Amino acid sequence: MVKENDYFRSGGLSMKQKSAEILAIGTELLMGNTVNTNAAYIARGLAQNGVNVYHQEVVGDNPQRLLDSLTRAFSRSDIVITTGGLGPTYDDLSKETIASYFGRKLVLDKESLQHIEEHFRAIGRPMSDNNRKQAMMPEGCTIFPNPNGTAPGCAIEQDGKVAFMLPGPPREMKPMFEHYVLPYLMKDSDTVLVSKMIHLFGIGESLLEHRLHDLMVSSTNPTLAPYAKSGEVMLRVTARVARGENPDPILQPVIEKVREMAGEFIYGIDVGDLQTAAVRRLAEKGLRVATAESCTGGYVSKRITEVDGASAVFDCGVCSYANEIKEKVLGVSHETLEKYGAVSPETAKEMAAGIRRLSGAEIGVSTTGIAGPGGGTEEKPVGLVYVAVDSDAFCQVLELHIPSRGDDAREYIRYIASSHALHLVWKAAGMAK
Amino acid sequence: MVKENDYFRSGGLSMKQKSAEILAIGTELLMGNTVNTNAAYIARGLAQNGVNVYHQEVVGDNPQRLLDSLTRAFSRSDIVITTGGLGPTYDDLSKETIASYFGRKLVLDKESLQHIEEHFRAIGRPMSDNNRKQAMMPEGCTIFPNPNGTAPGCAIEQDGKVAFMLPGPPREMKPMFEHYVLPYLMKDSDTVLVSKMIHLFGIGESLLEHRLHDLMVSSTNPTLAPYAKSGEVMLRVTARVARGENPDPILQPVIEKVREMAGEFIYGIDVGDLQTAAVRRLAEKGLRVATAESCTGGYVSKRITEVDGASAVFDCGVCSYANEIKEKVLGVSHETLEKYGAVSPETAKEMAAGIRRLSGAEIGVSTTGIAGPGGGTEEKPVGLVYVAVDSDAFCQVLELHIPSRGDDAREYIRYIASSHALHLVWKAAGMAK
Repeated sequence: MVKENDYFRSGGLSMKQKSAEILAIGTELLMGNTVNTNAAYIARGLAQNGVNVYHQEVVGDNPQRLLDSLTRAFSRSDIVITTGGLGPTYDDLSKETIASYFGRKLVLDKESLQHIEEHFRAIGRPMSDNNRKQAMMPEGCTIFPNPNGTAPGCAIEQDGKVAFMLPGPPREMKPMFEHYVLPYLMKDSDTVLVSKMIHLFGIGESLLEHRLHDLMVSSTNPTLAPYAKSGEVMLRVTARVARGENPDPILQPVIEKVREMAGEFIYGIDVGDLQTAAVRRLAEKGLRVATAESCTGGYVSKRITEVDGASAVFDCGVCSYANEIKEKVLGVSHETLEKYGAVSPETAKEMAAGIRRLSGAEIGVSTTGIAGPGGGTEEKPVGLVYVAVDSDAFCQVLELHIPSRGDDAREYIRYIASSHALHLVWKAAGMAK
Repeated sequence: MVKENDYFRSGGLSMKQKSAEILAIGTELLMGNTVNTNAAYIARGLAQNGVNVYHQEVVGDNPQRLLDSLTRAFSRSDIVITTGGLGPTYDDLSKETIASYFGRKLVLDKESLQHIEEHFRAIGRPMSDNNRKQAMMPEGCTIFPNPNGTAPGCAIEQDGKVAFMLPGPPREMKPMFEHYVLPYLMKDSDTVLVSKMIHLFGIGESLLEHRLHDLMVSSTNPTLAPYAKSGEVMLRVTARVARGENPDPILQPVIEKVREMAGEFIYGIDVGDLQTAAVRRLAEKGLRVATAESCTGGYVSKRITEVDGASAVFDCGVCSYANEIKEKVLGVSHETLEKYGAVSPETAKEMAAGIRRLSGAEIGVSTTGIAGPGGGTEEKPVGLVYVAVDSDAFCQVLELHIPSRGDDAREYIRYIASSHALHLVWKAAGMAK
């Protein structure tokens, strides 16, 4: 666990510490129909920029309770960021309520209205009168355009207090937060936080923390913080520097130390994710990959093709869920399937080799296993997955035993298996000439 | 969006309305390193049992701020449920703080200590002195055992107020909430809420609300509330009934009215999602589907194979990202690709027919389009996608123009395209003999 004060230790550089509260508005959050992922996203962004968050709150679409919460939040902090309640329907009252807190009226913003009208023309659906309400904005506010939806956001600043109103849907909120809220907040700051994210695969968080414990405790500028997420670990290295100062002399020595201590698990820095690392490396080397998936059912190719530019390195994938397709399309031998079964290292190998043959790609990767919840046996239990890679310079089959507890075990097994497949592709691309 | 008061209006049945607040404790939540999924889980469980939630809050591991929040929460509600802060480390101070609010001391609970000692024996690790702290419980509380971890939970009740303290990790918190907190809360209740979820595709939230406005406003028991999520809309119908009473006579007439007013968009009730609806319908009819994907790159097959039991209806999928693979594996004619291009209704049709031929499935579905951000032209812009289905009884090609602005436009375009493909499969399965 991170202690607030430790995390925000500024390494001796002076900066007026700001604090903010996050106030999510929406009965669907109160009722638990939606998980409040926005708060975590915003909190992370604020923390990275040295803004403290001491409270997060959720209230419903109820003007009086919203006003109470807003008043209380401003009694503790100068910055309040709200999400939600900007929708077109009669119960979306955030703007009215927050404007009234500042003693402002709502006025029609013509640009916003025009954007909303264009949006409906583009998607070919009629615009209802409700949507016009979304262009009514507090007098004198700074408007944030919303290219991903109809509700614009805004900032109202008065007497040293600033309220940011952002839309609730994460795909609308996130870009608005990055492109407008953070720059707005940081405009007066004389120092900035600069981070690099080291991505690791194949080591658990507690083991990594154990290895790096002394380095983590002794690092103050930059700080070093681990994050675990779905079978991967990331290490964030964060330096506080004066605006315009090159952060590399502070960041690089610590990154080098991490390389010395855990380099075998690092697959990239600021690379986003495994699929991006794999696709970039393939593209750099002019290689192509092809996928042959059984238990992952398209998860590997889906993740590869998430990456913009995947078409330069990916031509072909086959989901061979049935044995017949493994034989007919991929050319896995009938004898192998008979003798070892579909879930076996032998079948995985032939699938990877087969998709290479079919596609002409330099690297073939395959998965076959038991994703559950049904289909497991004592000999081949749920969570047993074979992942194979085939290329001229590097061939490997992994036998995975993925823990399968909980409601989303099937999703977890398939995701982890696809991560291993992507990691093998990344390795194979690295070894190719 | 739902108005609290509408939602909780009890339709004339008498029940003392309880209200609760959820207070999550943990600096990792405040900093955004962890998403607060617990709050949504608890809120859903409470809502289903007729307990109102008007506030959720997150505070750090800071005794003074926790005490402030607890005091404020009890000024508004009789029930406060806390999660987190029960860990063994020095900064986990929830129990001390909450006990002091009620004027209680912590005393050693021998049974809990024994459980913790057994836990460490079982995992073969030494027990640290810190862990002993986890067996210190508020005097006179009701202890909830934790079979999934070391920290027991508890309830303290005094002067009509009750605080529940639950551990933070979801796999420890959830069973404790189900097995101890809900029964504790419900022991005096005579009514329950029962919901059904109507799933719709192809209509936006505001248009649906427009159509159903009068019905939504006039419905009190059951209530009717819309939720939008990634291109779909759901309508939750919620009845309040006496414990043990059959809710169907209250729910069904309203569900029938919704069918009359928007039936063409309904693809299921309590069905979870499009892929589950499609797989179930295919299984019921003994049909199989095969996928031929270009721009979605495996997203459709990935979603189909998310569903447990997909292997009964899905044998084969091909991602034909390159034209060569469209020709060679799917048998799309060279002339079609030359004349109309890969992103065309003609190619989509031939892909769907081709994967049927290759796989022998009764239904073939295909996608081809421009997922962006690169690759768009004036004639064929980013977001243009063709989705085709091929079967004996039903063939169709859809031309989609999916709005493509924002950072995750590529993901959104691919997701919405895959949703349309799954919806076409669902339709085709319905028309098959």
